Parts: sequence; structure tokens; C-alpha cells
Amino acid sequence: MLIRVINPNTTQAMTKLIGESACLAAGPGVQVEAVTPAMGPASIESHYDEALSVPGILSEIAAGEAAGAAGYVIACFGDPGVDAARELATGPVLGIAEAAMRAASILGRAFSVVTTLDRTRGRARELVDRYGLRSTCVSVRACEIPVLDLEAKPCAPDRILAECRAARDDDGADVIVLGCAGMANLCTLLSADLGLPVIDGVSTATAMVTGLAALGLHTSRRGEYAPPPVKAYTGLLCGFEQ
Amino acid sequence: MLIRVINPNTTQAMTKLIGESACLAAGPGVQVEAVTPAMGPASIESHYDEALSVPGILSEIAAGEAAGAAGYVIACFGDPGVDAARELATGPVLGIAEAAMRAASILGRAFSVVTTLDRTRGRARELVDRYGLRSTCVSVRACEIPVLDLEAKPCAPDRILAECRAARDDDGADVIVLGCAGMANLCTLLSADLGLPVIDGVSTATAMVTGLAALGLHTSRRGEYAPPPVKAYTGLLCGFEQ
Amino acid sequence: MLIRVINPNTTQAMTKLIGESACLAAGPGVQVEAVTPAMGPASIESHYDEALSVPGILSEIAAGEAAGAAGYVIACFGDPGVDAARELATGPVLGIAEAAMRAASILGRAFSVVTTLDRTRGRARELVDRYGLRSTCVSVRACEIPVLDLEAKPCAPDRILAECRAARDDDGADVIVLGCAGMANLCTLLSADLGLPVIDGVSTATAMVTGLAALGLHTSRRGEYAPPPVKAYTGLLCGFEQ
Amino acid sequence: MLIRVINPNTTQAMTKLIGESACLAAGPGVQVEAVTPAMGPASIESHYDEALSVPGILSEIAAGEAAGAAGYVIACFGDPGVDAARELATGPVLGIAEAAMRAASILGRAFSVVTTLDRTRGRARELVDRYGLRSTCVSVRACEIPVLDLEAKPCAPDRILAECRAARDDDGADVIVLGCAGMANLCTLLSADLGLPVIDGVSTATAMVTGLAALGLHTSRRGEYAPPPVKAYTGLLCGFEQ
Amino acid sequence: MLIRVINPNTTQAMTKLIGESACLAAGPGVQVEAVTPAMGPASIESHYDEALSVPGILSEIAAGEAAGAAGYVIACFGDPGVDAARELATGPVLGIAEAAMRAASILGRAFSVVTTLDRTRGRARELVDRYGLRSTCVSVRACEIPVLDLEAKPCAPDRILAECRAARDDDGADVIVLGCAGMANLCTLLSADLGLPVIDGVSTATAMVTGLAALGLHTSRRGEYAPPPVKAYTGLLCGFEQ
Amino acid sequence: MLIRVINPNTTQAMTKLIGESACLAAGPGVQVEAVTPAMGPASIESHYDEALSVPGILSEIAAGEAAGAAGYVIACFGDPGVDAARELATGPVLGIAEAAMRAASILGRAFSVVTTLDRTRGRARELVDRYGLRSTCVSVRACEIPVLDLEAKPCAPDRILAECRAARDDDGADVIVLGCAGMANLCTLLSADLGLPVIDGVSTATAMVTGLAALGLHTSRRGEYAPPPVKAYTGLLCGFEQ
Repeated sequence: MLIRVINPNTTQAMTKLIGESACLAAGPGVQVEAVTPAMGPASIESHYDEALSVPGILSEIAAGEAAGAAGYVIACFGDPGVDAARELATGPVLGIAEAAMRAASILGRAFSVVTTLDRTRGRARELVDRYGLRSTCVSVRACEIPVLDLEAKPCAPDRILAECRAARDDDGADVIVLGCAGMANLCTLLSADLGLPVIDGVSTATAMVTGLAALGLHTSRRGEYAPPPVKAYTGLLCGFEQ
Repeated sequence: MLIRVINPNTTQAMTKLIGESACLAAGPGVQVEAVTPAMGPASIESHYDEALSVPGILSEIAAGEAAGAAGYVIACFGDPGVDAARELATGPVLGIAEAAMRAASILGRAFSVVTTLDRTRGRARELVDRYGLRSTCVSVRACEIPVLDLEAKPCAPDRILAECRAARDDDGADVIVLGCAGMANLCTLLSADLGLPVIDGVSTATAMVTGLAALGLHTSRRGEYAPPPVKAYTGLLCGFEQ
Repeated sequence: MLIRVINPNTTQAMTKLIGESACLAAGPGVQVEAVTPAMGPASIESHYDEALSVPGILSEIAAGEAAGAAGYVIACFGDPGVDAARELATGPVLGIAEAAMRAASILGRAFSVVTTLDRTRGRARELVDRYGLRSTCVSVRACEIPVLDLEAKPCAPDRILAECRAARDDDGADVIVLGCAGMANLCTLLSADLGLPVIDGVSTATAMVTGLAALGLHTSRRGEYAPPPVKAYTGLLCGFEQ
Repeated sequence: MLIRVINPNTTQAMTKLIGESACLAAGPGVQVEAVTPAMGPASIESHYDEALSVPGILSEIAAGEAAGAAGYVIACFGDPGVDAARELATGPVLGIAEAAMRAASILGRAFSVVTTLDRTRGRARELVDRYGLRSTCVSVRACEIPVLDLEAKPCAPDRILAECRAARDDDGADVIVLGCAGMANLCTLLSADLGLPVIDGVSTATAMVTGLAALGLHTSRRGEYAPPPVKAYTGLLCGFEQ
Repeated sequence: MLIRVINPNTTQAMTKLIGESACLAAGPGVQVEAVTPAMGPASIESHYDEALSVPGILSEIAAGEAAGAAGYVIACFGDPGVDAARELATGPVLGIAEAAMRAASILGRAFSVVTTLDRTRGRARELVDRYGLRSTCVSVRACEIPVLDLEAKPCAPDRILAECRAARDDDGADVIVLGCAGMANLCTLLSADLGLPVIDGVSTATAMVTGLAALGLHTSRRGEYAPPPVKAYTGLLCGFEQ
Repeated sequence: MLIRVINPNTTQAMTKLIGESACLAAGPGVQVEAVTPAMGPASIESHYDEALSVPGILSEIAAGEAAGAAGYVIACFGDPGVDAARELATGPVLGIAEAAMRAASILGRAFSVVTTLDRTRGRARELVDRYGLRSTCVSVRACEIPVLDLEAKPCAPDRILAECRAARDDDGADVIVLGCAGMANLCTLLSADLGLPVIDGVSTATAMVTGLAALGLHTSRRGEYAPPPVKAYTGLLCGFEQ
């Protein structure tokens, strides 16, 4: 079974990190393929970045369909392009925010999201609403570290930890959701310090997609997620429409 | 890894059916143990039945903790006792309604629940609200077959199928959620006829709990799901308090 | 007219206190009977405690039906077993959280709940949602005094008063709801100090149930609250099913 | 104890009917005074009518304060002027829609409102939202009989009954809420035919206000319901501002 | 095209200020007429004031219909009488709270209302809910200056500015909505200091009503906003019913 | 003042139609420029189409900024790319669904959307939720005519009219919102037949944007809509990032 994990930005180092997280969730007989789109932004920190990432994501879904992928993970916490991806894909498609937030609401009653830049908090809250989790999400906090500095900056783990502690002590969080795929490698460290479950969306989404696909469950081919009507496209090609 | 799947009613034939469904989701290295409580109702078709099933469920959680279970599935669509079970359990605990409804909202945009008796629809709608899925659930339909007649009555599959078709054609459902653990063996048949994903909560919950447990994620030990304060109990013993 | 007021825990001293509160609301011609279940926890401070209290509550409802009770009050702020109790009862059944919160939303526009342990705040918020009062409830505060220490600890009134003042001054509460049946005797003291209405759920629920019953209104016998289907139960007997 | 029941329209025959309903709920020691305002519309069937009824209602509240009333019922299903009335009143103030809907959500899980004109259904739904009861209210139905024809038209009971039956059979209602004070005398007839609790807001509100007042509970004097600031008014005098 | 802008209070100086704000939004061919009702309160700072302002507002709508007005603005932040006014008016009717809040949700993602007295915040929040903007409104703040002191008190601009800064810095507001028609002249000053859009409802509502009327759009004459049924009124005459 | 109206699809005939609608709302001194993106789908009938339209829309916003546009209309009923566009634009940006739905909730109390294909109804409902209008939107209906057939098919007006009538008569709609920019020319015809306001989003959005821009109001430059961080983009260029 092939699970395709798509890094929506074009930074290869981050694809590598994402692939490693996804592999934690891949049992025997599951092949994880982490891919980088050919077009898009170097990181996603605005609605603009997110919009420009979607055509590249969809190209990777189209390529995955050609390769017989059994399911997909979209590894950016804004869950970009998920609806369009589900129209193209046969297997399940899951964004890491949806996976992490749903898992958090199974493991506790009050989760906090700790994310990168303050300006992305609105999108996180919008997803909380979309997934119906407003009564379970007690806060969305930002550590004000740009995505691509997460690995580079030595102070990053400390600042993330400080926000997690504030989420626990001031907001009453009983579970932490990491709000960026680039934070995945901090999971164990944070959980040990905090005494709380800390959820990385990449591995969680991979586990869920694998589990659904193994049961033969696929994206509905009827209604809103039916394959898109065939038509002409100008200037942007994602491979599906050909 | 041991996953304990608890049939909240005392009917052994149903435990056997539930165990078979759960095993569909158990990969290599996972042992599924389907158990029947020593006390409780023969089937669950009212709030009263549900209330009386909970002490038996909690005894099975306490026994599972003693046996080192890595996670639990509560295999009744009313998700009875889930909050209390999470207070007792180290690993993840998941009811089949929560698992099935969350999966349905990943695979489509408009799911219907098809359940047994009309009088249980209120509880199903209450769970839809609890899990924040009101905008994704388009209907809750009942086939008016008592739980223990699901296997016995030859007409049961036809009546369930009729409700599923009505959900698809009249309510616009693109995914079907089976509203009773006793319907699990109809999944393939229904899905083939309807051309829609049909979700059985038992196998789906087993897959999700296994996936979360494999990542080392557990129920939060802080806040609302912390272990209950120690105190005296009269007349009802579940094994935890000893 | 007989109103049965059920203390869901097994502590007799608390039943006595509850009975005194209920009697404040019983006019001429109304007999209040405060009862203690034969099984259950000594106090209710977790989902586990709440679950184990329900069979005892239901036994008291069944006994009340045999005795011709006109209505019931369930005197724990978690409103345990209310749905199941309504299936068994002919007259109205009311939990003290529902009664107090509905009264608070008549007397003001911004109520706070002041309860015992922090870990029970989640259940209180869940009830706020169930009763549709999220826009009227401005906070749920805990004084961190265990239920059975409320009477014993000399500092209890001061700590409760401090939380009430914070609710008024910091959260903008214009009405206080006492979040435990064991606080009822503090009503007058708190109200005088705060200059706010302070609501005890036991007396309020008793007044409401009495009022509804006097008008001949009863629990609906159709749909979700119809009497439970007859079936076999193992190991747990509440008297109804016999 | 004096309870003032205000008929918001100027039709004396309706005041008489309302007074009779209220008296059903008045136990020993309670005096019910049903009053007709000196200004306002002959009946309330639009937002315009409702707006013009409010000054007359407020004059009756001001007069009630002078007379030492312990509480108030506003006997129109649109609950006109309730917020302003609470600013003027010492005791509890309750509209009949709020009373009836809250009672309905105690007695069942799915109530229907059966009201007069179709054009008033929007206001009823708005009140359902204000009181947080959207998940309990399954429909708002109109029998298209003008308010003042309810008593005059021989066909009125049959048309009201027909809508109640449709609410029960088509919408799944388990409780009926009568959507006009002028329907109160039909309660017993309808309930016997339907096999459901049928709630008249006038008697229910009277019972609730009496119960709260007897416990010494009053409208909060702090925050939004504090007495209005003193100032000049031109052309409209309600007695309070003098 | 004639747009009638109604000051719901009887203070002429405020009508003048409102007229000046409205004229900012009136392009060529649009005549703005700011009017003061003959009856009502000197300012609106309670539910009581609001209730007493409505008959005067409706008289001005009726007079506007006689004069052929193309649309109406109700220039008080509580949007008093809007539903009744829409029943009387042919053209669009808009309150300044609705206009300002809808504009704020177009220009940003997180608006704060800064209003006069603390006791009016409840009404502002109620309107936020009515207009469906709860997820966009991050706070409602009061500067505790009475309406008629806004112009007189030299310290008023500073106190309003202080609340706006707190909204921006503590609540994360990206747009400010002024919560009183009497603050309109501060718009430019505040916006320059804060670096945020600051919205005055009077000019915004005038622009929206003018735009809708210019497209030939009118209030629906069917359903809830159809003209009120003809009937007798006692003691209060607004000109419509004659 | 220059208002840029962007047709998100690449079909020139539709741009012409959109430009004509927008000009209806442009008063003296306002120049409307209707533009067609250089890349994107021929029409928008799926999430996939919508995703592929966004880069083209953003290029037109970037070009508009260079040309000094005072505001923007995005003329597709899915409001594609609105958040990203607001990050790039100085003036107000408005999608036609948002404009039409907000106008509908001013003119009536119960609007219906009548759109093209059934599969797009989910997106319309999602926008209803985003704009907080769930209690005002009574239905979303589809006439099952593809976007590009709206002008070509002679039967199109009749099918659209049939759905509008059903919305009025079966769903109780008092206002109709046209769910596609390609229906704008039917407004007068439909309104005359139905006796209801019928709202075209293109002209309404143009009027609103013009009105806001004329008052000097702009998109907030702080928080979520601040200009995007500068970074590298691969393969997709919209002109902003250069």
C-alpha cells in the first residue's frame, strides 16, 4: 500500500522531515512517499502562500493517482486544497490539521494549537470551526518563529515549549497540537516536559489514512467530491485535466 | 499490542460479530480481544439500557488496564461511558459513533446515519452535536428493527438498504454510517449496491485506536480525564476503585 | 402531591442538607421526600463517579413511581441520569444544573457557575451547551474544595465567596449559580455580600417541578422518553424492569 | 404575594381569558392580577404591533412596582419588551414564550410551536434561538387564524388540532407549545386527543414566576438589567421616569 | 433620490452631527434628510430607552413613505425598531450597527466595538449574534461616557482612543467599529492614530442603503416583512395605521 | 475612482456580461474595469476549478494595485481567493456571494440561493456558514444547468424561474440570491414574475465596494490581512511577489 505524503511547500529539507514523521506511522506493508511539488512557495505563512501552493499539491495528487496511491496526506497545517484534492483522489485525503485536531479531541477535552506566526492563527481558528471543534479548542498560540527558522534557530524549541506551558497552565489545555509540520521532531521532547500528549499531524494523518485505506474505504465518488467536470484550462496544468 | 473491544451488551453472539469486525482492522502485531460485560442489558435501545451498560463497560476497562491493554473500543453506537472510561484508561478510548462519524466527514461532505429504532435517533443527533458534525450530517434514519433481530430477521438487510437508498436519494448523503454494531457484516453488500462508502464503526474505531496507540499517544492524564479521586463506593464495584 | 428529591451520592448528611433546601420551595399540600440511593459513590467528582451514581438514581425513580411521586429532582450539579430517569418517570424530572441555569437566564444576562473541583468544570460547560445557554454563561469557576469538605472546612465559605466576587468583578456576572448541592445553605450569605441573585439548584428545581406537576404536565410518553423496551438485564437491577 | 399578568394587547376579552389561565397556576397565598394596558394594538400580529405594545406594557410594570408586585408575566408569545421590563421590575419577569419553551425542553426532546399567523413564525424562531433551544424545537407551525378570531371562529379548534397532529406525526414532536395566549383554553382538549403534553405559556409562566419569587429570587440589579439612567423623555410617559 | 436618516433620540444637536456623517456618503443626486422624532428619550442607554424610541422612529418611517423616501437609516447602535420599520418601508432600512459590523467583516477578520456605557454591551453582543458575526467580533468595549457627554467632555476622545488601542493590542482587533452615532466625528482622528480602519455606522449605512436603492432593490413585501395587518390602535399613533 | 471587477474564469463572453452588471452600480466618477485572467478554468464548477482560478485572480489584483484600483469585486459565487486577495489589496475586496447574501439579509428574513450545478451547493452552504447567515438562508437550490450553458440554452430562464418559485412557495423564501454571475441579466425578469427582490451579486458587490471606498475605508493592513511575508516562489508568479 502506497501512501503519498505531500509537502505543500518547495523546501526539500522540510519534505525530508515530513517523510520521517510519516514513516513513524507506517506499519509493515505500507510504503510512504514524501514528495515536494514543482511549483509553489518556499513556506506557507499567509493566505497568499496557501493559494499558490494548491496547484502544486493537486499535481502531486494527479501523479499519485497515476501511481496507484492508496491515500494522501497534505502536510501543511492550513490543510490547503483538501476539497479539490478529494475530487481528484480515489483513496482518502487528510490534512494534518484535521488529523491532529480530531485526534486531540479523542485524547482530551481541551486542546491548544501552538503554531508559528501570529498571522496564521486566524486560519487555524477557521479550521477549528470547519471541523466543529470550537468547544474543545481552548486556544491557538503563536511562537512568532517563521516556518523556515524552526530548524535553524537554536531558541526555537524553548519558545515553542514556553507557549505549550502557557497553554497548559493559563488556558487549561490537556493536549497540545503542533501547528506546523516543521515542529514534528519536537514531539517527544515536549511531551516529556509537559506531561501532556503532544500531537504531530503528519504521523497522525498518516496513521488515519492508512487505517481507512486498509479497510477499503475511499473518498465518496458522489456529490460534492465527484470527479470535476471535464473542461478547458488555460495556463495552469495539474495533470488531472489532461 | 492488545486492543480491547468491549461489547456493552451481554449478548455473546453480538460480541462474536463485533470481534470479527474489529479483526478486519488489526494489522500484524495487534491482538484484538472482544469481551462481554458480566452485567448490563441484553441490548441497548434506550437511555435506560445505556445507563445500565456503563458499570459493566467500566469493569472491562479496569480489567483491560490490569492486562496491559494499549487501547479500547466501546462498540455501541451511543458511545456509552466514554468519558468515564477515559478517566480509567491509559491508552486511547474510542466509541464507534465517534469513529464512524469522524471518518465519514473525511470521506465525504454529507453523511447519513442509518440506525435501528426510531427512539434512538435523539441520542445519535446528540452525538453529532457533541462531535461538532452538525453541518456534515444530513440525516439520521431508523429502520425500526430491534437490535437483536438484525441477524435473525431475513428482511433486515432489505429494510436497511431501503433506508440507505433514501438517505442517498432524498437526503443527498454521500457517505453512510451504520448506526449499530450489529450491522457491521452488511458493509460490503450495502456499499456495492449504493455506490457509496459505508462505514462500520467497529472496524474504523479499531483502526484509529491502533493507529494512535502505535504512535505512543495516550489519553491525557491531566484535567478532566485525570484518574478519578479515590473514595468509597457502595454496592457497585467496577474493579478500578479497589 | 409527593416530590421525590434524589441525592445521587450515598452520603446521608448531604441528603439531609438537600432535603432542607427542597423544603424551602414546597408550598402547602406538597410533600418533599429526600432519599439516598442504596448504591453509588460517597460523592460525585468525576465522570466515573457520575456513571456509578446512575443505577442508584434510577432505582429511586422506580421506587418513586411505585409510591406515586408527582415529580423528581436529581440533586447533583452534573444532572446524572436525567434522560434515563425521564424514560421511567410519569411526572417531570429535573436536574439541579438545568433548573439553576434556566432560572439564572431569566433573572439576568450573564451568569457564572461556581463549583467545587476544577476537574468538574468540563461537565458544567457541557451542560451549559446542552441547555443552549452558552451566550448567557460568562464563566465556570472552581473553588477547589472537595464536595464532602464543603461543610467540614471552615474556610469553605470564604473561598466560595472569593470566586463569586471574581465572577462578578472580573467576568461581569450579574447572577451566581451554585455548582454543588452541598453549597445550598450559603445562598443568603453570598447574596447579601455580593448584591446579586445567588441560585441554589435544589430549591429552584423543586419549585419548577412542583409548578409543572401542579398544572398536570408530565414527561412526554412518546418518542425519545417513551418507557424503555422490556428486555433481560444481568447483574444490575433498578426495579423498573421487574 | 401579588403576581401581575400583563396582556400586551388592548382587548379586554383576551385579558379575561389570560387571567383565567394564570389563576390555574396560583396556589394559596398568591393573588393574580390580569391587566390591560391603556395604549397599544388590539392584537399583536406583526413587529409593528409588537413595537407599539411595549410602552403600554412598561406602564403596567411601573404601576405594578408602585403596587408592590412580586413578579410579572408578559402574556404575548413574542415576549415583547421583556428586557426593558426587567430593567424596571424588582421581581422576576417572564414572557410566555420563554416559559413554555423552557418547560417543553424539560418534558420532552422535540417540541413544536403551533401559532396563529404564518408571518409571526419568524419571531417565534428568533425566540427559539434567543433561548438556545434550536436543537429541541423541531418546527414552528401556523394555523392561519388571526388572534381575535381564535375564540369567535368555530373551526379554530379543528385547525389548531390539525397542525398539532402534523407536528406530532410529520415533524416528530413529543411536546406541543401553544403559540398564542388566546389558545390557552384548548390545552386539555388537545392533550387528550394527541396523547402529548400541551403547554400553555400563561399558566406555566405564572407558575415559574411564583416559584422564583417565593424563593426570594429577583431580577439582577447589576449590569444590563440595572435600573435605566434618569433622563428626559418627550411625548411618551410610562410612569417609571417620573 | 431621498434617503431619510432617523436619529432615534430627541436631541437636536445629535441629529445635526448624524446628518453631517450621512452626507459624507451621499453622492450626486442623493438628498439626505436627517430627522428628529417628536417623541422619545433624550438619549438611548438602556432597553427602556430603546423601547420608548421605537414609536417615534416608526412615525418618521411613515412620514418618509408619504414623502417618497427611497431608503432609511436608523442611527442608533442598538438598531431599534428595525424589523417593524421594514414592515412599513418600501425601500431598504438599515441600522448603523448592522451596517458597521457587516462592513467590518469585509475589511478585516477581527473587529472590536467601542461603545459608550458598559450596560449597553449586552445589546451590542446580541446584535453581533443576530447578524451572525460572533466569530469575527473579538470584543465589545465601553468607555463609560454617557451619550450626551461625548461632545461636551474634553476627555472623551482620549478615553475612546484608549479603548481602541486596548482593542488592537490586547484583543487583536484589526478593525474598530464605533458603537455610537455620536462618535462619528472622531473617525479620521482615531484611524490615523491606530493605523486601523475605523468604521462609523452612519456614513456606512447611508452608503449601503443608497447603493441598494440605486439598484432598485427594496424590502421584501412577502412573508415576515409584509405590511402589518390593519387593526385598531389605542393611545399611540405612528401615522401608518391611519 | 477605478473599481476592478475580476471574472475568475477565462471565458470572455462572461466577462462582458459581468462588466455590464457591474456598470449598473457605478455612479458618476466611478470607472468599472471588468477583466479576464490569463490563466484558469473556462468555468468554475468544482473545488478543483476554484483552486485553479485563484492564481489568475491574484495576478489581476496585483495588476490592479499597480494601476491604482480603489477596490475589487471577485465575480464568482464561490468567492475564490478572497482572503489572499485581501492580503494584496489596499482597497476593499468583495466576493459576489458575500455581497449578495449580506444584502439579502437586509432586505428580508429568509433568502434562497438558486445556483447552477447540484455539486456546487456544498460550497454555497459553506459560505452561508462563513458569513454567519445560516438562520437567514432557507435553502440552496440548483437548476442543473452548466455555467457556460446559461446563455446558450433557451430553456435556462424557465428552469431558473421554476427553482425560484419553488424557493418562494415550498421553502418560504422572501428574497432570491442568484448563485452565478452568469445569471445577472435575468434579475428584472425574475423579480417581476416572483414579486420578490432578486439579487445579483455582481452589481451589489460593486455598489458596496464603491460605497466603502468612497468613504476612504480600506482593507486592514494589520493582522491576518497584512501583506504576505516576502519569500521565494517557484513556477507560479502572480506579480505581487516580484
